[in-house]
Amino acid sequence: MGIKMGIIGFGYMGHWHLKNAPKVDNVEVVAAYDIDPARVAEARETGLVGFDTLDEFLKSDLFNLVLVATPNDKHCELVCAALNAGKNVICEKPVAMSLAELDKMIDTAKANNKLFTVHQNRRWDKDFRIVKEVYDSGELGHVYSIQTRLHGSRGAMFGWRAEPEHGGGMIYDWGVHFVDQLLFMMGFDCVKSVFCKTENVKTPEVEDYFMMVMDLKNGANVQMEIGTWVLKALPRWLVLGDKGTLYINDFTRNGGIISVDESVEPEEIVVMTTSGPTRTFAPRGKKEIIERELPDSPADLTEYYANLRDAIDGKAELIVKPEQVRAVFTVLEAMFKSAKTGEMVKL
Amino acid sequence: MGIKMGIIGFGYMGHWHLKNAPKVDNVEVVAAYDIDPARVAEARETGLVGFDTLDEFLKSDLFNLVLVATPNDKHCELVCAALNAGKNVICEKPVAMSLAELDKMIDTAKANNKLFTVHQNRRWDKDFRIVKEVYDSGELGHVYSIQTRLHGSRGAMFGWRAEPEHGGGMIYDWGVHFVDQLLFMMGFDCVKSVFCKTENVKTPEVEDYFMMVMDLKNGANVQMEIGTWVLKALPRWLVLGDKGTLYINDFTRNGGIISVDESVEPEEIVVMTTSGPTRTFAPRGKKEIIERELPDSPADLTEYYANLRDAIDGKAELIVKPEQVRAVFTVLEAMFKSAKTGEMVKL
Repeated sequence: MGIKMGIIGFGYMGHWHLKNAPKVDNVEVVAAYDIDPARVAEARETGLVGFDTLDEFLKSDLFNLVLVATPNDKHCELVCAALNAGKNVICEKPVAMSLAELDKMIDTAKANNKLFTVHQNRRWDKDFRIVKEVYDSGELGHVYSIQTRLHGSRGAMFGWRAEPEHGGGMIYDWGVHFVDQLLFMMGFDCVKSVFCKTENVKTPEVEDYFMMVMDLKNGANVQMEIGTWVLKALPRWLVLGDKGTLYINDFTRNGGIISVDESVEPEEIVVMTTSGPTRTFAPRGKKEIIERELPDSPADLTEYYANLRDAIDGKAELIVKPEQVRAVFTVLEAMFKSAKTGEMVKL
Repeated sequence: MGIKMGIIGFGYMGHWHLKNAPKVDNVEVVAAYDIDPARVAEARETGLVGFDTLDEFLKSDLFNLVLVATPNDKHCELVCAALNAGKNVICEKPVAMSLAELDKMIDTAKANNKLFTVHQNRRWDKDFRIVKEVYDSGELGHVYSIQTRLHGSRGAMFGWRAEPEHGGGMIYDWGVHFVDQLLFMMGFDCVKSVFCKTENVKTPEVEDYFMMVMDLKNGANVQMEIGTWVLKALPRWLVLGDKGTLYINDFTRNGGIISVDESVEPEEIVVMTTSGPTRTFAPRGKKEIIERELPDSPADLTEYYANLRDAIDGKAELIVKPEQVRAVFTVLEAMFKSAKTGEMVKL
C-alpha cells in the first residue's frame, strides 16, 4: 500500500518532509492543510491538493498518513482528530505539552487501532550513529560518563519555540532529541534520577539553556547541556570508558577514539604550575597515546520513512515506538520538575 | 619576628616548602623531623637541624612555625601536638580525614591561641587568578554556569593518595583545591546543594574520578569534574555569562573571553545535519565574534608565605582562614555522602 501523506501545518518542517519523504519508494506527499490560506495556496502551487478547512482535510481519502507539523500546543488536538478520522499519524517533535497529552494521543491511537509515531529524526544524526556504534561495540570498555552537549552562539530561539504558550523552550526543542538519543542507546528504562537547571539567558519567555545530570541505573553519569549563548563550544560528545575516550566535535564524523598504548614505558613528566607541581595531571608522552578514526556509521534519514511505510504495510516494527516517546517524556517531566524545585527527581 | 619553620614529614611537599618558603624575607626553614631516619639524615645534609624523635622536635625552640607535610591520616594528631607544644602550624592539604578531625584542630588552635592554617596553594594558580579577576570585574555579565575541570591521562594516583587508610582519593587530593577555589571566588556560604558521583577507573582502592554539580544560592550551576583517565581533555575552565564566555585551556593564560558584536548584522546560516537542518545552532559569521586576551593576573605563591609571616607578626589577617577550610570540608563531606547515597545533599 505504501504511504500517501497529508500534511497539517505547511511551515518549515512541513516543507522539509515534502522534500525528503518522497525519496523513498512508495512514499508520496499528496495534500496539505494550514490555518494560513497563503500556505494552502503555496501547497497547491507545489502540486499538492490544498485544503481550506481541517474538516474537509480529515474527511479526504487521498492519504493514509497524516503528518502533524504545527506548533506544539496544537499537536494533541490535531493528532487525536486525525486518528479518530481513521488515519495513521506522524507528529513532529516535541510531540506534546505534557505527558498527559501524550498519553491521550497514545490511547486514541490504540482505540482506533492506527499507527502513531513521532519524528525523532535525530536518531539519524551522523554523530549519534557513530557514538551508538562505538558504544555497542564495547571497545571503550566500562563506560562511566556520557557527555552530550550543544553549544551555540546565536542567542535565539526561532518562532513558536520562544513562546511558552506554544510549547517552546530548549527542553522541548532540543532536550527531547538528546534524551531520545540517550535512551535509544542506553535503554528506555536506564535512568535512575535527574537533576536539571535551566536559564533564560537571551530569551525572556522560555529557557534557552539547560544543564542536566542523569544518574543511570548502570552507575554511569550523563552530563547534558544545551545553550544558545555558550560562545566557546565544547565537543558535541565525550564518552569516557576505562579502555578509551570517544569525542566528536560537531554533527559530523569530526572526532576520534583515544586510548593508551600500555606497552610503551610512560615518560616521566612533571607539570609546573604557579602554585606547585603536578605529576598526576602531567600529560603523557606522544608515543603512549593512540588516536583512531571514528567508524563511518551509516546515517540515512530515509530509513525513517521506509520503516514507517513498512510498518503501515505490516512488514516491520516501528523504530520510533510510542512507548519509547513516553519514556522520553517521563524524563522531560522530571527535568521540568527538578528545574522548578531545585531537587533531584527519581524516576 | 618572622618565620622560623620546622618541618614534620620531609617528603615531596616538605622539600617543596624548603625550596619556596625562604624566597620571602624573614622566612627561614631551620629544622625537620621524619619517621624515616634516612630523611632526617638528608635534612641534616641540606643544612637543617634534624630531629630523630617527635618529642625532641616539639620541645625545640629553634622554630615558631611547624609545617605538617605527612600523609593525611597523621595530620590531626601532629597538628594538635604541635599546637599544644605552643607552635603556630601550617598543615598540608587535604587537612583532615573528616570534618570532625578538622574541628578538633581548629579547637586546639583556639585553646592554645596559636595560628593554624592550611596550604591551599592553588588559590595562587595562574588560571584561577585570571578567572577570579574576570569574574570580579563583572565583564561576563550575569554568570549562570562555572565549569571547572581537570582531565588527565596517566590513570595514576601517587603514593598515599591511592590509599584510603591514609586519606587518599581524588576528592581529597584535588577536589579540596577546586572546591576551595570556587568558594574563595563565590563566597564560603555560596552552596545550596551538591550532587556527586565517583568512579574507581584505574585505582581500585580510591576514587580516581569524580563529577560534581553544585547548585549555588545565587542560581548559577557549578560543574566540576576531575579524572585521571579522560583521554581527551576539555578546557580547564568554562565560565558562561550573559555578556560573554571565558575559557582557559590549562593551568596557564592560554584562553580568552568571547563576546558578540551586536552592531554587526547576523549572517544567516543554516547548518545541515544528516537528520535535518538547524538555524538555532548554526555558527555566527566571523565578523560577529570578538575574542579578547585574558588579563595577565599576578599569581605569586610567595604571597602565601609573606601573609603567614605578617599574620604571625600580627600585621595581617590570614588569607587561608580555618573557617574557610571548614566550609570547604563541609562541601567535601556532602560530596562523599552524595556519592555514597546517590542523593543530592543540601548544605
